[in-house]
Amino acid sequence: MPEEVLNDISHRRWNPLKGSYILCSPHRTKRPWQGQQESASKTTLPAYDEKCYLCPGNERAGGTLNPKYSRTFIFVNDYSAVKESQAEYTPDAKDEEFFRAESVTGKCYVLTFSPAHNITLADMQPAEILPIVETWTKLYAAHLDPESGLAKVAKPILSSMEGDSITIRSGKQLRYMQIFENKGAAMGCSNPHPHGQAWATSSLPEEIDCELKQLHKYRASHADKHMLEDYAALESLRQERVVFQNDSFLVVCPWWAIWPFEVMILSRCHLRSLVDFSDTQRTHLAEAIAEVTRRYDNLFETQFPYSMGIHQAPLSGTPEEMEDSYFHMHFYPPLLRSATVRKFLVGYEMLAEPQRDITPEQAAKRLRECGGELYRKNL
Amino acid sequence: MPEEVLNDISHRRWNPLKGSYILCSPHRTKRPWQGQQESASKTTLPAYDEKCYLCPGNERAGGTLNPKYSRTFIFVNDYSAVKESQAEYTPDAKDEEFFRAESVTGKCYVLTFSPAHNITLADMQPAEILPIVETWTKLYAAHLDPESGLAKVAKPILSSMEGDSITIRSGKQLRYMQIFENKGAAMGCSNPHPHGQAWATSSLPEEIDCELKQLHKYRASHADKHMLEDYAALESLRQERVVFQNDSFLVVCPWWAIWPFEVMILSRCHLRSLVDFSDTQRTHLAEAIAEVTRRYDNLFETQFPYSMGIHQAPLSGTPEEMEDSYFHMHFYPPLLRSATVRKFLVGYEMLAEPQRDITPEQAAKRLRECGGELYRKNL
Ligand SMILES: O=P(O)(O)O[C@H]1O[C@H](CO)[C@@H](O)[C@H](O)[C@H]1O
Ligand SMILES: O=P(O)(O)O[C@H]1O[C@H](CO)[C@@H](O)[C@H](O)[C@H]1O
Repeated sequence: MPEEVLNDISHRRWNPLKGSYILCSPHRTKRPWQGQQESASKTTLPAYDEKCYLCPGNERAGGTLNPKYSRTFIFVNDYSAVKESQAEYTPDAKDEEFFRAESVTGKCYVLTFSPAHNITLADMQPAEILPIVETWTKLYAAHLDPESGLAKVAKPILSSMEGDSITIRSGKQLRYMQIFENKGAAMGCSNPHPHGQAWATSSLPEEIDCELKQLHKYRASHADKHMLEDYAALESLRQERVVFQNDSFLVVCPWWAIWPFEVMILSRCHLRSLVDFSDTQRTHLAEAIAEVTRRYDNLFETQFPYSMGIHQAPLSGTPEEMEDSYFHMHFYPPLLRSATVRKFLVGYEMLAEPQRDITPEQAAKRLRECGGELYRKNL
Repeated sequence: MPEEVLNDISHRRWNPLKGSYILCSPHRTKRPWQGQQESASKTTLPAYDEKCYLCPGNERAGGTLNPKYSRTFIFVNDYSAVKESQAEYTPDAKDEEFFRAESVTGKCYVLTFSPAHNITLADMQPAEILPIVETWTKLYAAHLDPESGLAKVAKPILSSMEGDSITIRSGKQLRYMQIFENKGAAMGCSNPHPHGQAWATSSLPEEIDCELKQLHKYRASHADKHMLEDYAALESLRQERVVFQNDSFLVVCPWWAIWPFEVMILSRCHLRSLVDFSDTQRTHLAEAIAEVTRRYDNLFETQFPYSMGIHQAPLSGTPEEMEDSYFHMHFYPPLLRSATVRKFLVGYEMLAEPQRDITPEQAAKRLRECGGELYRKNL
């Protein structure tokens, strides 16, 4: 394979999903590291912490009491980045060139993954992750434009799912819902209680806009075929970047990964969003998430920090945008060499081009090799 | 001003230099912070550290001895991300769609700012920063395409400057040189000895490519006027985002800043690159750098971490690219509320859209107010 040489030389790889390059310098891992060390994570948390604002029955900012929930629990973020209503802003037409701004409204949710304060996705079995997938589906479905084709698909499945029911819904039709999790102090997470977030906004965020444009271009030039479906088929054939697979999903270190152990969960066939999933596909997604998070923790025998999230169809948009959308998940973890040494995407990366030190093929091989039980299971 | 309302509402701002949006949520600073704290920086370093590989006379990786330099000192990075020569890579034509890669060669330099181990740019007077500006100019000029108009301008000024002479030059003509500094452990810097880097590559990095395209579009649609010249004139008129100014440069928190205290040093008139500078302009740039770094340290009375760098004309390119280029510097500092609480650009920011908590106008006001002597000067 001509690609073997890429293990030894500096090169750029093309990311067709974003339409941009990243720089890869595999020989660079040899340099010694004398810089910042991350602190190893505490592993002795209690199952219930009376000071945690996410634990069942506890009080949150402003005095609200959490219910004594037993699975997942959703509430509106007490410090939301966007709000449903705010003062109007009418830009001055003459400012359009350099002082262009537009108002953004929306709703920010927090979603706990479990009542237990001291576990993470890596500790959970696929069957325990399934209710989270179901709750994501319900939350997303509840915010869909009722006129969209997706909303029609969503209706029958909602009642059949076990995840907690969603009674909250925003008044104004929003444009996109970003579902994500920040895990670990290194990724700006301020509470170890397992939880994620969902920010729904009146605008289509930059990253989604960029991916949608690329996905659309590919379809337009490839007889309506989906970029990520074609890509998944090719990765499945090659196997060298595949970390895990089941009948519905592929876990790969993408050819164009930026973070050292970045992975994508790719649907093997076209699913526009969570509401397109069958029962089996939801189970398979829960399994894929369990496989990624457990392997991450096993890799350096630590609570592996990351940010992860779902990219899928907007809440409202043109039928074409809905059809171009292709469900996938990104995991962006910062650790590079050990539980305490991370990759910094700083000077060159911020000012010039993202740069990585190990190849995605090397990363995939290591993640493939650390499957099996969670390292701390019998500690 | 209709913009007053932007202090209280969530909104998106347009960045014309990158052609993308950022989300601004000013009310969000009210949330409590219980997450990661940065460690306060050591302030008691020795002026000379025998273990530092950057101090004069010391040994580096591989046994090379540093000269007993008295001002700045340049050497080729012992762990360069790109190298001058490496194995050839011929991509397989059939892989072009998803497995596209191209070889990148180049040269990575390290540049010390001073022989003293225990000072930073913030501790230095403009007159002491001037030799750094001169050394950057010489290093950049030495790598310019000899056929370019810039190289012709460069020749006479090189001999007139005091900065250390540059004898190193890459064999192959390279495309771009990214000059930058990572300061502080939080920004991946592993050695407190004051130093920056310069990575010259055979490819045009993504960020530069993106900015050049935006700069070109503006000129094409504005009768050949320069976007950043027009922008600087407007900011100079408004003053609300201006932190410091002299006759040649403006220090502004740009309308579209992402990091809490992000600033740009903007030339007031069109300068393509360092070789276009007059003696006075070099002195004024040194002053602007001193003003930024001193104000940063004064803000939270700490060694303020940041990544900074120069954007200017490529080393080689079309005459049009050279003419579109407009010298400016970006400073990206992570601290948000204090010496120990930073802004994390994580989940939502990585997956959806960059998000900031205070407005650039608020940041500029605070930076304007902390001029004067360095807080630790008389400690
Ligand atoms: O070359 P250094 O200073 O060791 O490394 C630092 O700067 C580089 C360029 O921004 C980054 O790629 C590294 O992650 C960072 O630790
Ligand atoms: O909302 P949280 O968890 O307090 O905050 C965290 O996630 C947000 C969304 O990615 C970021 O904007 C914050 O910087 C980060 O600290």
